[in-house]
Amino acid sequence: MLYSLSTGGKRIRPLLLIAVAGSYKPVNGEMYKLGAAIEMVHTYSLIHDDLPSMDNDDMRRGKPTNHKVYGEALAILAGDALLTESFSLLGNINEQELSPRDALYLTRRLTEASGATGMVGGQIADLEAENRGVTLAELEWIHRHKTAAMLKFAAEAGGVIGGAPPEDISLLRPFAEEVGIAFQIKDDILDVEGNESAIGKPVGSDENNGKSTYPSLLSLSEAKHKLRNHMEKAEHMLRSLSVPAPDLFSVLSYIEDRDR
Amino acid sequence: MLYSLSTGGKRIRPLLLIAVAGSYKPVNGEMYKLGAAIEMVHTYSLIHDDLPSMDNDDMRRGKPTNHKVYGEALAILAGDALLTESFSLLGNINEQELSPRDALYLTRRLTEASGATGMVGGQIADLEAENRGVTLAELEWIHRHKTAAMLKFAAEAGGVIGGAPPEDISLLRPFAEEVGIAFQIKDDILDVEGNESAIGKPVGSDENNGKSTYPSLLSLSEAKHKLRNHMEKAEHMLRSLSVPAPDLFSVLSYIEDRDR
Repeated sequence: MLYSLSTGGKRIRPLLLIAVAGSYKPVNGEMYKLGAAIEMVHTYSLIHDDLPSMDNDDMRRGKPTNHKVYGEALAILAGDALLTESFSLLGNINEQELSPRDALYLTRRLTEASGATGMVGGQIADLEAENRGVTLAELEWIHRHKTAAMLKFAAEAGGVIGGAPPEDISLLRPFAEEVGIAFQIKDDILDVEGNESAIGKPVGSDENNGKSTYPSLLSLSEAKHKLRNHMEKAEHMLRSLSVPAPDLFSVLSYIEDRDR
Repeated sequence: MLYSLSTGGKRIRPLLLIAVAGSYKPVNGEMYKLGAAIEMVHTYSLIHDDLPSMDNDDMRRGKPTNHKVYGEALAILAGDALLTESFSLLGNINEQELSPRDALYLTRRLTEASGATGMVGGQIADLEAENRGVTLAELEWIHRHKTAAMLKFAAEAGGVIGGAPPEDISLLRPFAEEVGIAFQIKDDILDVEGNESAIGKPVGSDENNGKSTYPSLLSLSEAKHKLRNHMEKAEHMLRSLSVPAPDLFSVLSYIEDRDR
């Protein structure tokens, strides 16, 4: 569990949560607990996705994948225990910072975002799409479930623990969905024209694996145009919030301009 | 998910929960929801335990195991989604029957019972014990974590949703621990002297697989003596409850006298 949690990564989900929550009140330890819960769910999904029966990946973030180090059985169980532990963290947040009713609401939301109706559903669609071409609509469905659902949860959770007004929370969810799709388009673009040492895997791996991506379905320049389009929608929603939220604009710039 | 949920089984965990809760107030649908959550956790653990990298079992309850029907990837994901769904069910229980604070308390307890400190920890110890002899103390540690922890949770959850007084709940947990160990001893005895068509697998499979069991570590008659001993402790605790609880005595008889 610790091995995979400590291999780094962009921590984009907790980053988003903290940036949202911190827009409404000073950042505190309970917000980090909630961010850690989200990162645990993400980490469990990576461990299971990397398994031989799924994507069969040997390396992740420049290090051997969990099952390469500990074997398949322990990798499966480490993922199971990380998923379980995430609900424990969520259930252990101080009542002063998150009421039991709100904690339970976020528990339900986390199950929707991560389970059969969210991330797991997206992974199943992704596996089924592996050996055939997909349409742009199918690709988008996969990313909305596999990636964007958890980002939406992160943004909503940040709003709830930060005490954001309901009108802001109903903007933050579609905002994070735009961020999720933009994040994935950027990933696909980096796979075409990124720097190998920065992204930590060979450029062109998607094309070599026959994976459908935004550049392959649209063209590289159309993909860049689409990225900018999602960013503009996200920026527009941020400007409609009841607070200035400069950190959230920084998160957007980071996602659009990153080189890995 | 539905395939494995609907293959039957003894449903001992929800049975225990309903028998406890029903000792304090009329049984209602919200209690069944909680029981279903526990059965989902149990079912996910069976799907993952049966995988080729774990116990590599082809049959379960007289039917092909999940990965034999759907493949390893979908079996892993079905388990993941069942675990996730269990927390959703728990978080969706009507507030009139279970307060948000109590629901959150049970969420924490469920994570302790099922995660690294409970069931998953027991499974890891069980895997590590596979190719060596274990002592009676080690065998008991495995069963306390792998089996008894979830039975304890079932009993406590039944007490909480039934509105049992705190003194009763602090009896129900050790009661269920005795039940869990007794359940396992009975399983081991059935593997020695059970009826093949009733238990649905060949008699003597533990011995043939070189598995340490209560009869192999103690002798068959000593194991039977130990079973009775745990039953007497459990009966004693039931008699100390503030309510009569005849259904819980029935659960005890069922566990001791069952032929499968």
